[in-house]
Amino acid sequence: MKLDELIARIRPLDEGAMEAAANRQELLTKPRGSLGRLEELSIRVAGMTGDPLPRLQHKAVIVMAGDHGVVEEGVSAYPQDVTAQMVLNFLHGGAAINVFARQAGARVIVVDTGVAADLPADANLIVRKIGHGTANLAKGPAMTRAQARESIISGAEIAEAEIARGVDMLATGDMGIGNTTPSAAIAVVLSGRPIEEIAGRGTGVDEAGLERKISAIRRGLEVNRPDASDGLDVLGKVGGFEIGGLAGAILAAAANRKPVIIDGSISTAAAMIAVCLAPEARNYLIAAHVSEERGHRIMLDWLHLQPLLDLNMRLGEGTGAVLAMNVVEAACRALTEMATFDEAGVSEKSE
Amino acid sequence: MKLDELIARIRPLDEGAMEAAANRQELLTKPRGSLGRLEELSIRVAGMTGDPLPRLQHKAVIVMAGDHGVVEEGVSAYPQDVTAQMVLNFLHGGAAINVFARQAGARVIVVDTGVAADLPADANLIVRKIGHGTANLAKGPAMTRAQARESIISGAEIAEAEIARGVDMLATGDMGIGNTTPSAAIAVVLSGRPIEEIAGRGTGVDEAGLERKISAIRRGLEVNRPDASDGLDVLGKVGGFEIGGLAGAILAAAANRKPVIIDGSISTAAAMIAVCLAPEARNYLIAAHVSEERGHRIMLDWLHLQPLLDLNMRLGEGTGAVLAMNVVEAACRALTEMATFDEAGVSEKSE
Repeated sequence: MKLDELIARIRPLDEGAMEAAANRQELLTKPRGSLGRLEELSIRVAGMTGDPLPRLQHKAVIVMAGDHGVVEEGVSAYPQDVTAQMVLNFLHGGAAINVFARQAGARVIVVDTGVAADLPADANLIVRKIGHGTANLAKGPAMTRAQARESIISGAEIAEAEIARGVDMLATGDMGIGNTTPSAAIAVVLSGRPIEEIAGRGTGVDEAGLERKISAIRRGLEVNRPDASDGLDVLGKVGGFEIGGLAGAILAAAANRKPVIIDGSISTAAAMIAVCLAPEARNYLIAAHVSEERGHRIMLDWLHLQPLLDLNMRLGEGTGAVLAMNVVEAACRALTEMATFDEAGVSEKSE
Repeated sequence: MKLDELIARIRPLDEGAMEAAANRQELLTKPRGSLGRLEELSIRVAGMTGDPLPRLQHKAVIVMAGDHGVVEEGVSAYPQDVTAQMVLNFLHGGAAINVFARQAGARVIVVDTGVAADLPADANLIVRKIGHGTANLAKGPAMTRAQARESIISGAEIAEAEIARGVDMLATGDMGIGNTTPSAAIAVVLSGRPIEEIAGRGTGVDEAGLERKISAIRRGLEVNRPDASDGLDVLGKVGGFEIGGLAGAILAAAANRKPVIIDGSISTAAAMIAVCLAPEARNYLIAAHVSEERGHRIMLDWLHLQPLLDLNMRLGEGTGAVLAMNVVEAACRALTEMATFDEAGVSEKSE
């Protein structure tokens, strides 16, 4: 797969399908507009899929894991080993994402994009290691430009394989100790906002840890000087392998006209890279929730996305995204399954 | 069933179960507090059910329908016939509540508490008619005190029968053309706030319709002088049969230690009546969402409830409540199904 060819496949929303869906919403047995954001959402999904009666039956969350050299700056409250330990937890079904995915009827696809440790072989683990953790972005580029491209392509190939197997709604999730640092760095570069407005406490660092994180990002931007107009440059210099992988999954979803629900800060940083590379990809994004992580709202605003949920979550793994699948499915089911006024013999508004 | 006996059965939350649930949340494989409001919610449900590992498998939404004499004041955009037509739509599975309930795996229990028309017999329709629509509250009491009591008791009996059959999470829903008017009247009496801050456009009345609605409520309060310290007086003078039925269902859920998810304005007015009669009932309430209807946020504030969703919905029927079941279930499943740090061999925070 070539990146420029993948990007070229991303098309605008299908206006005809959106118009047909909007017209149908007016005929359903409910006061006009009374399903609020669910109506808008169903119309957007019609535009994404090109189907005025979109059905989202096969769901999957792609959880990409990777490690980060920047942890040597003391930016996380947890030791790096936790990345690999949590991947095993995903494979054994004990993590929050497994619980939510079971409830949602979504498959969990676990990918090692660059965990520092070598994980034991497992039939349910996809290994596409770009490296054994990134380099420390505070001291130089996190990865080479070739690795950045490779991370995106491998994420796109994984997503496309799932779509080929019938998945019609994707969610994105992440695991990587330290990865709110590269996510914040990406958000700072692309949004142009100050580091202090973006960087937050991640998994729960104290005040000193937050200072170290801000300092690491500041030094990383000074030493690397990423070019905000070049998504590959930003990803390579201050990103992460799992962030690249998720950006690729998002581009593949968009190229295949599938809605992709993004989770918190890390998934949103990946979405920003994807949109930097391919502005049309934005149309295929659904923002699940606004995370507690400080800059997340700013990142969603940059993407012009309004989150569906606001439950003070900050867990990652795709948990918010999978929780929001229920809302997206309900929106589409209302559009496709409700009776019209005519069908049900219900009188319309008297005006 | 006697009302005072029902109320006497409502107990405080189980502090021991809440403490055990809170302790378990600290051991699960996630950063402390990272599931945000889902963690608080799971602890509350533990307190409601008395079970530190609450499982909510059997779900039902009780949709109570009734008509309102106040429609003769021109307070609704739809003709009164729509109440009966929509009840048939519920029975045929074509309404939004049917779609959302199918997705959530919840049974829809449809109750005629006082529809003006006599509906054709249907095995799935529970008929507990207190009257053929209420009287016009703008001109006198909507119902007698005896009818108010009867509406509550019959709602409680229906809910208790469902609980006896194994339902462990209830949602409340309503259908009744004109019923945002009695709901607003109840909210004004109990909250003490001005009518203009509470009354909204319901299913979509225009400016003149809203003026008529405000005027009808003002005259209703003047002519009836409901006593804000007496829930039966408020319900009888300015309420509705379905509102009384839902208040009874809420009291029964509380008396049986079951969580009850309330929907929009009408369900929330019913919850206000229930809490006026039995303040401890508040502990068993979960607010699904904040509706677009003007005074709904004020009503939730009066109940000290924070809604889970904010999706600009204003459909009623229990649609918001059933949509929120997914969040409540996810909260409890995370508590009960996630692995602990020890079980998963994951390192804890390094501090």
